[in-house]
Amino acid sequence: MTVLLSGRWSAAEGERWAQLLREAMPEEQWLLHPPRNAAEAAAVEVAVVANPEPGALSGLPNLRLIQSLWAGVDRLLQDPSLPPGVPLARMVDPAMNEAMVHTALWAVLSLHRRFFELQVQQRQALWQAPPQLRAAECTVLVLGLGELGGRTAQTLAGLGYAVHGWSRRPRELAGVQIWQGEASLAQALAAADIVINLLPLTPQTRGFFSAERLAQMRPGACLVNLARGAHVDEAALGAALDRRHLRHAVLDVFQQEPLPPDHPFWPHPQVTVLPHCAAQTDPRTAVPQVRVNLAALRAGQALAHLVDRGQGY
Amino acid sequence: MTVLLSGRWSAAEGERWAQLLREAMPEEQWLLHPPRNAAEAAAVEVAVVANPEPGALSGLPNLRLIQSLWAGVDRLLQDPSLPPGVPLARMVDPAMNEAMVHTALWAVLSLHRRFFELQVQQRQALWQAPPQLRAAECTVLVLGLGELGGRTAQTLAGLGYAVHGWSRRPRELAGVQIWQGEASLAQALAAADIVINLLPLTPQTRGFFSAERLAQMRPGACLVNLARGAHVDEAALGAALDRRHLRHAVLDVFQQEPLPPDHPFWPHPQVTVLPHCAAQTDPRTAVPQVRVNLAALRAGQALAHLVDRGQGY
Repeated sequence: MTVLLSGRWSAAEGERWAQLLREAMPEEQWLLHPPRNAAEAAAVEVAVVANPEPGALSGLPNLRLIQSLWAGVDRLLQDPSLPPGVPLARMVDPAMNEAMVHTALWAVLSLHRRFFELQVQQRQALWQAPPQLRAAECTVLVLGLGELGGRTAQTLAGLGYAVHGWSRRPRELAGVQIWQGEASLAQALAAADIVINLLPLTPQTRGFFSAERLAQMRPGACLVNLARGAHVDEAALGAALDRRHLRHAVLDVFQQEPLPPDHPFWPHPQVTVLPHCAAQTDPRTAVPQVRVNLAALRAGQALAHLVDRGQGY
Repeated sequence: MTVLLSGRWSAAEGERWAQLLREAMPEEQWLLHPPRNAAEAAAVEVAVVANPEPGALSGLPNLRLIQSLWAGVDRLLQDPSLPPGVPLARMVDPAMNEAMVHTALWAVLSLHRRFFELQVQQRQALWQAPPQLRAAECTVLVLGLGELGGRTAQTLAGLGYAVHGWSRRPRELAGVQIWQGEASLAQALAAADIVINLLPLTPQTRGFFSAERLAQMRPGACLVNLARGAHVDEAALGAALDRRHLRHAVLDVFQQEPLPPDHPFWPHPQVTVLPHCAAQTDPRTAVPQVRVNLAALRAGQALAHLVDRGQGY
């Protein structure tokens, strides 16, 4: 099959992925975007993509599969020229899952045990132990109980935290208290000491953390955003931190990335800024996933991790 | 029974423990150190202690049990006037165990995923993702496989880390590669990216991290000391960090505590200083443990968590 590779990445990063994919699947014809002519475009049956430029996937009349290398497909779905009706698969990479669970765990441990405050104390040469709460006394709410949220919730529960999960759709997870649907959201937010955002970005979840929602959070609570910057009204979050309604925020994603040098979150003592590194796709585990889906396509078998375009994830 | 309570703590902390113990065991006679006269001293059958002053337990002719409220008994055993032959029990508190495992986990996640470096980058408004290694590519060596070390090793293994454990005595732990005895120590140290010290402090382990041992560690490795400050030659550790043989140290304990304000570790960019707060005894779970041992003493049953004075733990 002819496979088109298209991403919004550096030339070096694109070349690295192209090389790994070619090595793993030498039986396919690999093209780098854009196709050189109409014949080449007509030959393309699969597009392997990493947030391609809008329009990059138009003019491919025989496209049968769009396979994303990244887990989030919100930017892809915003492209009005995305060919309708072509199956779209997202990446579910075990190494990325592990990295996300570990980042969430680090954030929860840091917030629960006051390690961010202790690092500020160190700069002041201040020797003062914080109160030690048990994990069971710390309620963590995980928003979004898909692949990443579900694993995060269960790992935290295994470490003794009081874990709640909120999901639009019904869901069951051992050891996790589930809140379901819009109606329960305010109550779920009010019950949590730490809220971890792992929602997909859809028209419904854009601007999820508005001033109103932030006000529903428990005084002194903390926010961990590992999903998308567009979930959060950054001005409202800054205000909630400044007036100490919220204690701390750990943010991996922002409305504008890289975070602009003059953004008030950089020097904010109650904000921990991560450079969108909570969980990266690992080529060593992601390339085999692409291989599995291409083999399934060729054999006419079921494709893995297809996105429901109506739901947006 | 008459129980003497003796600790090196603030008056408020002593009163708090006394109140909790009295409430939980109103059937006992509780005395605060020192006994007022010889008759009172003669009545004492149990001493419940928290690093008492040297000599505090002499002159108690009918003492039948020394129960420590803290996990570490190294300071107790250094008291030459400690009554010989009286059973000595250490604290094994589930809340303290949990806190220690969580601190170790936070340190490993911080070191493995370069979160300390990212916090330095934040102060420079620098947006740069570090390389993302999988947990299985990070070898963590846990020194000491007692209650705390064993749990720490198994929790880390459950999260995907390549976990090694070193112990003087033979030990088996599912998912943990065991190195046993002095002869294997240099090899174990050389194989680890992160070394967590949870050894007991004994005459054999005092000064364990000498310049020579630190040099046996892998270049770029990290040290996490959650045991005792006396395990580490601090000058040698500072030198190993300065010449970048070691990448980072997370230290909860020091030769002198509180760490003196002019100590070079406070401002050291490769040292994370914690104010001896990795794991504190929680009265809510520790008091019931005392109760269990006092009931066993009264009934002539086996006492829990007795220390082998010859071994020192």
